[in-house]
Amino acid sequence: MADTVKKDFNLSCPAPRLTNDSIVLAHGGGGKLTQQLIERVFLPAFADPALEARHDGASLEVAGLKLAFTTDSYVVRPLIFPGGNIGDLAVNGTVNDLAMCGARPLCLSAGFILEEGLSMEVLETVVASMAKAAEAACVRLVTGDTKVVDKGKADGIFINTAGIGAIQTPLPVGPAWVQPGDAILLNGDIAAHGTAILSVREGLEFESPILSDTAPLWSAVEKLIDAGIEIHCLRDLTRGGLSSAVNEIAQARGVGIRLDEAAIPITEPVRGACEILGLDPLYVANEGRFIAIVPAAQAESASTLMGPDAVQIGSVVNDHPRTVVMRSKIGGNRVVDMLSGEQLPRIC
Amino acid sequence: MADTVKKDFNLSCPAPRLTNDSIVLAHGGGGKLTQQLIERVFLPAFADPALEARHDGASLEVAGLKLAFTTDSYVVRPLIFPGGNIGDLAVNGTVNDLAMCGARPLCLSAGFILEEGLSMEVLETVVASMAKAAEAACVRLVTGDTKVVDKGKADGIFINTAGIGAIQTPLPVGPAWVQPGDAILLNGDIAAHGTAILSVREGLEFESPILSDTAPLWSAVEKLIDAGIEIHCLRDLTRGGLSSAVNEIAQARGVGIRLDEAAIPITEPVRGACEILGLDPLYVANEGRFIAIVPAAQAESASTLMGPDAVQIGSVVNDHPRTVVMRSKIGGNRVVDMLSGEQLPRIC
Repeated sequence: MADTVKKDFNLSCPAPRLTNDSIVLAHGGGGKLTQQLIERVFLPAFADPALEARHDGASLEVAGLKLAFTTDSYVVRPLIFPGGNIGDLAVNGTVNDLAMCGARPLCLSAGFILEEGLSMEVLETVVASMAKAAEAACVRLVTGDTKVVDKGKADGIFINTAGIGAIQTPLPVGPAWVQPGDAILLNGDIAAHGTAILSVREGLEFESPILSDTAPLWSAVEKLIDAGIEIHCLRDLTRGGLSSAVNEIAQARGVGIRLDEAAIPITEPVRGACEILGLDPLYVANEGRFIAIVPAAQAESASTLMGPDAVQIGSVVNDHPRTVVMRSKIGGNRVVDMLSGEQLPRIC
Repeated sequence: MADTVKKDFNLSCPAPRLTNDSIVLAHGGGGKLTQQLIERVFLPAFADPALEARHDGASLEVAGLKLAFTTDSYVVRPLIFPGGNIGDLAVNGTVNDLAMCGARPLCLSAGFILEEGLSMEVLETVVASMAKAAEAACVRLVTGDTKVVDKGKADGIFINTAGIGAIQTPLPVGPAWVQPGDAILLNGDIAAHGTAILSVREGLEFESPILSDTAPLWSAVEKLIDAGIEIHCLRDLTRGGLSSAVNEIAQARGVGIRLDEAAIPITEPVRGACEILGLDPLYVANEGRFIAIVPAAQAESASTLMGPDAVQIGSVVNDHPRTVVMRSKIGGNRVVDMLSGEQLPRIC
């Protein structure tokens, strides 16, 4: 190992290699390599039951109070994209991770890493969007930090937000509580965020522009809780998209998951853009979409509460444990695997 | 303003300019420009009483529970330096910001931004140091996130840690509670961290190597609380050093501060290195040093509790409000201003 390090340092510009010895983009992609990095490096070092739960955030008990705590860094490129910018993404993303713990978002921290030479106007635009998104999500931004690095050592703005929420669900929520027979509900059409980002990067223009779906999700989750829906698991469909979310749950719980392709909503512009860009929408990141896994008996009422575009897209089954199988529109079955490499770097 | 933005985008490589239109390194230096950035961009956007307190972290009340919440991003260069690395720095720094709120550190989040091509061995070294530092500080690392950016768009590893603490002080702690007549106590010799970093960057070698002072500070603060010391303000002496910390307090509270140069401990190797490097030790960052401002009557017992190297270095006065005046070793007085530019970029 020591030799490898020396070699890296001696090369003036070492080519990125897909090995175990150095970090590649896919380690941040939310798929298999991200899982491997977590299992190989982070979990052994930080052995903690909250981390091992492998949820979107940690659930903590502080003096009898049930809190959720989560963090995300945002490195999206470009900083400003159709339907949003890195600022509202950084607020909504962390608010949503709290919501996925069944927690009402209370407050956020914001850590900025700015690149020397960044236009002050761009910073002001991003900060204004953060403030607006925080207001819309009823969350306070209470503490912050700013670092500046030399030109060429970052890429405009990186933002970290961490958030504290108050857990509102009477029972714990997470992959461990998923049961065979449960219904899997989705709150709307998928793949808009990733497609919007990649379209602008590739300079594609469509008749109807594709906008990111970035949005706060707590109010939909709150409706489920208030109505007494027995929520087993919640997961937002960010990096790695729908397929990675359901695969993670299937693997963590050792159950099978069946999806019905015909039920998964995708708008025509997004479907067309995915075809042009060579993307599988099941793997494309969303920033305002989540799945709720609930008892089948409550599926219909839960779906109504989740919003006008919510639908049941599948079920948890006893068959094919740890595997996600999708019935295609023409009636065949195919295994939907977890994202293995990196479909879209720097999507959030 | 719009013109400026266009101009920036048209230039292939715009030179960094010290204007109000773009970010310069000193905006992250912890001195005057950092203050201006906070006042111009962040405070107006995020108007929140917790932010306006301008403390190291936010104090929150959640269901009757008094919590502190804080965040810091770490961009230190080099990643590994004499006496520590970015990993223990990221744990101790945030633990210390909680301690400065009078809060027992409970848990941390960790957000990693990794540069493609980073050696896995370096990452493992840093993560192992974080785990060790967390254990030493009795704090749990409960949630995390990893992003990877393309080679050349970051600098190895950036880490953000956010922390939650349980406030233990019976009365609020912060600049607003400082009183004329109070004693200013310091827990040890200053300027080791910044000098250690700059020495290694400049390739200087000294007879006795200078090590960073990175260390957790909660146990010293806890002793003050347990002994019933009436703590008015706590501040760790990170970016901008001792001078920026006392200036911030003097300005926030509208009081004068007097320092006694002869009382401020600096080791001979650090003093010598500062002379060679052209640094004023009063402005050099520390990562294990703090000041406690307490009633004069409790100064002696508080100083003993803060450790064997703690000393009183000055007092809060009614004279020269918002100004820090230091009596030099030869008896003269000089105004100690806040750091105005950037003495040492990327020190933490």
